[in-house]
Amino acid sequence: MLALNLLPAAPAHAFNLQGSGKGKHIIILGAGLAGMTSAYELTKLGYQCTVLEARTRTGGRCWSIRNGATAAETNNPQQTARFDNGLYFNAGPSRIPHHHQLTMHYCRELGVPLEVYNNVNESTYYYAEGKGPLSNKKVRAREVHNDMRGYMSELLAKAVDQRKLDTGLTQEDAAKVIEYLRAEGGLDVDKLYKASARRGYMEAPGAGTHAGKLGDPLRLAEIIQSGLLDPDFYNVAEYTYELQMTMFQAVGGMDQIAKALEKRVVGNLKLGAEVTAIQNQTEGVKITYKDQKGTHELTGDLCICTLPLPVLGNVNHNFSSDVSRAIDFVPYIQTGKIGLQFKRRFWEEDEQIFGGITHTNNDLTQIFYPSYDYLGKKGILIGYYNFNEKAKKVGELTYQEREKLALQKGQLIHPQYPKEFEQSFSVSWHKLPHSLGGWALYNSDERKTHYAALLKPEKNVYFAGEHTTYLTAWMAGAFESARSVVASVHGRLSEQRLSYPSVGSN
Amino acid sequence: MLALNLLPAAPAHAFNLQGSGKGKHIIILGAGLAGMTSAYELTKLGYQCTVLEARTRTGGRCWSIRNGATAAETNNPQQTARFDNGLYFNAGPSRIPHHHQLTMHYCRELGVPLEVYNNVNESTYYYAEGKGPLSNKKVRAREVHNDMRGYMSELLAKAVDQRKLDTGLTQEDAAKVIEYLRAEGGLDVDKLYKASARRGYMEAPGAGTHAGKLGDPLRLAEIIQSGLLDPDFYNVAEYTYELQMTMFQAVGGMDQIAKALEKRVVGNLKLGAEVTAIQNQTEGVKITYKDQKGTHELTGDLCICTLPLPVLGNVNHNFSSDVSRAIDFVPYIQTGKIGLQFKRRFWEEDEQIFGGITHTNNDLTQIFYPSYDYLGKKGILIGYYNFNEKAKKVGELTYQEREKLALQKGQLIHPQYPKEFEQSFSVSWHKLPHSLGGWALYNSDERKTHYAALLKPEKNVYFAGEHTTYLTAWMAGAFESARSVVASVHGRLSEQRLSYPSVGSN
Repeated sequence: MLALNLLPAAPAHAFNLQGSGKGKHIIILGAGLAGMTSAYELTKLGYQCTVLEARTRTGGRCWSIRNGATAAETNNPQQTARFDNGLYFNAGPSRIPHHHQLTMHYCRELGVPLEVYNNVNESTYYYAEGKGPLSNKKVRAREVHNDMRGYMSELLAKAVDQRKLDTGLTQEDAAKVIEYLRAEGGLDVDKLYKASARRGYMEAPGAGTHAGKLGDPLRLAEIIQSGLLDPDFYNVAEYTYELQMTMFQAVGGMDQIAKALEKRVVGNLKLGAEVTAIQNQTEGVKITYKDQKGTHELTGDLCICTLPLPVLGNVNHNFSSDVSRAIDFVPYIQTGKIGLQFKRRFWEEDEQIFGGITHTNNDLTQIFYPSYDYLGKKGILIGYYNFNEKAKKVGELTYQEREKLALQKGQLIHPQYPKEFEQSFSVSWHKLPHSLGGWALYNSDERKTHYAALLKPEKNVYFAGEHTTYLTAWMAGAFESARSVVASVHGRLSEQRLSYPSVGSN
Repeated sequence: MLALNLLPAAPAHAFNLQGSGKGKHIIILGAGLAGMTSAYELTKLGYQCTVLEARTRTGGRCWSIRNGATAAETNNPQQTARFDNGLYFNAGPSRIPHHHQLTMHYCRELGVPLEVYNNVNESTYYYAEGKGPLSNKKVRAREVHNDMRGYMSELLAKAVDQRKLDTGLTQEDAAKVIEYLRAEGGLDVDKLYKASARRGYMEAPGAGTHAGKLGDPLRLAEIIQSGLLDPDFYNVAEYTYELQMTMFQAVGGMDQIAKALEKRVVGNLKLGAEVTAIQNQTEGVKITYKDQKGTHELTGDLCICTLPLPVLGNVNHNFSSDVSRAIDFVPYIQTGKIGLQFKRRFWEEDEQIFGGITHTNNDLTQIFYPSYDYLGKKGILIGYYNFNEKAKKVGELTYQEREKLALQKGQLIHPQYPKEFEQSFSVSWHKLPHSLGGWALYNSDERKTHYAALLKPEKNVYFAGEHTTYLTAWMAGAFESARSVVASVHGRLSEQRLSYPSVGSN
């Protein structure tokens, strides 16, 4: 701990490799953040790069849906977004932890302005559909949070006070803990939790005689029996290191990061180029890809492959059995989002919800309120953001059925939906042909086998992308992996021994 | 509780009074938010208003310090701010709670853009100067928060598990509580708190083999004995209803709200006009004020007095003894801030602190990091924000001595201070002649006596301002009081009975 705090913090990290890659050709598969960052950094070093991207856009999962965005899924036809100009939602990553230093670094270096993504908001709801005494009631996060703090602090204060616990503390320190619990829980002078202003008012305080009126707390048994403490509700999500405030988003859509990178690599980029084969050769590597004009072959000294593993599974290759198994067996999460455009920001105007996330046990799982255009006229909510079984089920639906589901379940929480709704656009990542999943999900065994297999170059092919990091799902994984692989490639070709330290965070 | 959530929320609140005030003259004392809002709303109704303001600027305590701002204190000469263009700090209110509906409403109505004020940030520090085992060590908020959650949850889980407490819960519900405590505290499978990623890493996770390394938790006794649980540290501040996220600030400085109001009332405004006497007359009211040209008298039908009570104490008047006592005896907080301009945003670049507040037990009390221009070049920190005894002591110092104190104490926490410091500007609110205090501080007895006396009109004089509300210190108090007093004035002059409901929040 002391080392953590007393060490001088690492400065914002420029990537200063020495030596030249002149005359060497690197083929990079995938123009997501990992691929484009690799190309950007290798180009700085003098390498010739070719980036092959199957989609007709860059960014991969770093994708903001605005008017005109299109996508076809594996069993749904092409859809086109019809949102108002200026409105968007981030179909992929929507949040940047402030301690993801490489993401922050590239935003600085590329000139991408950031604004706060307001991940923590005590005004959002917990909504238990069909469960317990609070079934189908909207409860503000601040009510659950502060009632639970109150009850838990009251119980513990009692236990410590009555010396029912061996706390290992001196009497004086135990007294301090009780004082702390009084403050933490908002307990009264008798160390009992009744209710406090922290959970909001029945009638707000104002001018003159309007002193404000408190409501009654939720009962502990109500909270428990309605399942509000269950993992369904992700109730401790904001404690997670990656989800702690401060969080950021790129102003105008997260794809501004991808677009800024694209500007730096545009000369090396082939869009609409779908890789069909990767062949290691005695020297170098041969890539086969097809585009609108037909099938092409391309040779390079080395290849950096950033394709998601489920996509790579459909590509011919002559890799070792360890790598083949990793490609076939690393699980990817199923996940989806729907953007819902409303003609009025009723969540702000009627309900005083500005950003943040509502949690529910139904198929929606979460509703995200936009962290931009506060006080504006229209807005796009993320009507669901779900995972695993719920995302699988929703992914099987047509776009229209998903919209219907989002509206039906959403209007239980926000009755304004039917009157205010205008447009939707939904994405199931595991159904998008060039992604086929959300992100890699390793358990600790898979880290030892499949993951380890992907960290070594497969002869002349290197792997990069969030799936080659301990930052799976995060843009930082793309950036970290790109730097790691660029250091390895450059070390090999310039015959330097380079060791790449993680930038990360503290 | 149910009523709270099931009632349709109040719509954003336009102030729709009927009837005309034509031919009536209202004199408004003070061009802070309460005075200008009163003038704005009365002017809409057809009243003739005159606003007298002693300062040469509007806004009162709603004041942003940027290049060229000036102030003289009661025992310090005039100072002028020499900050770079584009940089500012809010000397007065710097935060808008999202549930202060009237503040939000006026920002909407007046077209003042808002951005998130990032009040919650787990990366800021707790710094105990000269106390306990953690003396003079920087500890991240996330370390203290998550270690405390861990230890408290572990203790309570043990007590519940061993049935040492009468929880009043069924066995099944008690088991749910234990599961909750495991999640809440980040406990391991044995329900023990060791450490979790929530408290940050010694070595960050990254690409390849960089799995990340956790540090050791702080020990409970260390935290206690270093005073990190003491009220000094305001450690539960962010639970406070008013300080819960989402919080906002006006883009470009909080005084943008005052400036937007000023535009609506500019024709009725006299700056540099210091009120010296308020005389109720048989009919109407006579105000005496002085300006650069001399002494003047002004008569009106009614007067709305928004002067802070300590300022009003220096004005001649013929008020009742109840009101006189209120003027003399309502205590006001002593409070001060210093803005420190640095040539580099080292707190962001070196320490990954983006907004939020560092807490310390020394005279600084708090350091506020700016919630604008993230990733920019320069920035202004609020180097201290202190109250009561600490503010009193600092208020006695010269500007130079305050700067020295802020730098000396601040560099204990941020050693970059001496190298990066450029400019300062400090404000002690109780030393500013036209404020003479931060805000009114009532105890419950004073609410019954002095406060009650100020709610009734003193013949033809009405009182408004944060000190006439249950929202003392907040801009919402100014807005709520203005509406309340406008409703009363208009009710009297238009012979309507108007009752003004609090807008407030839920």
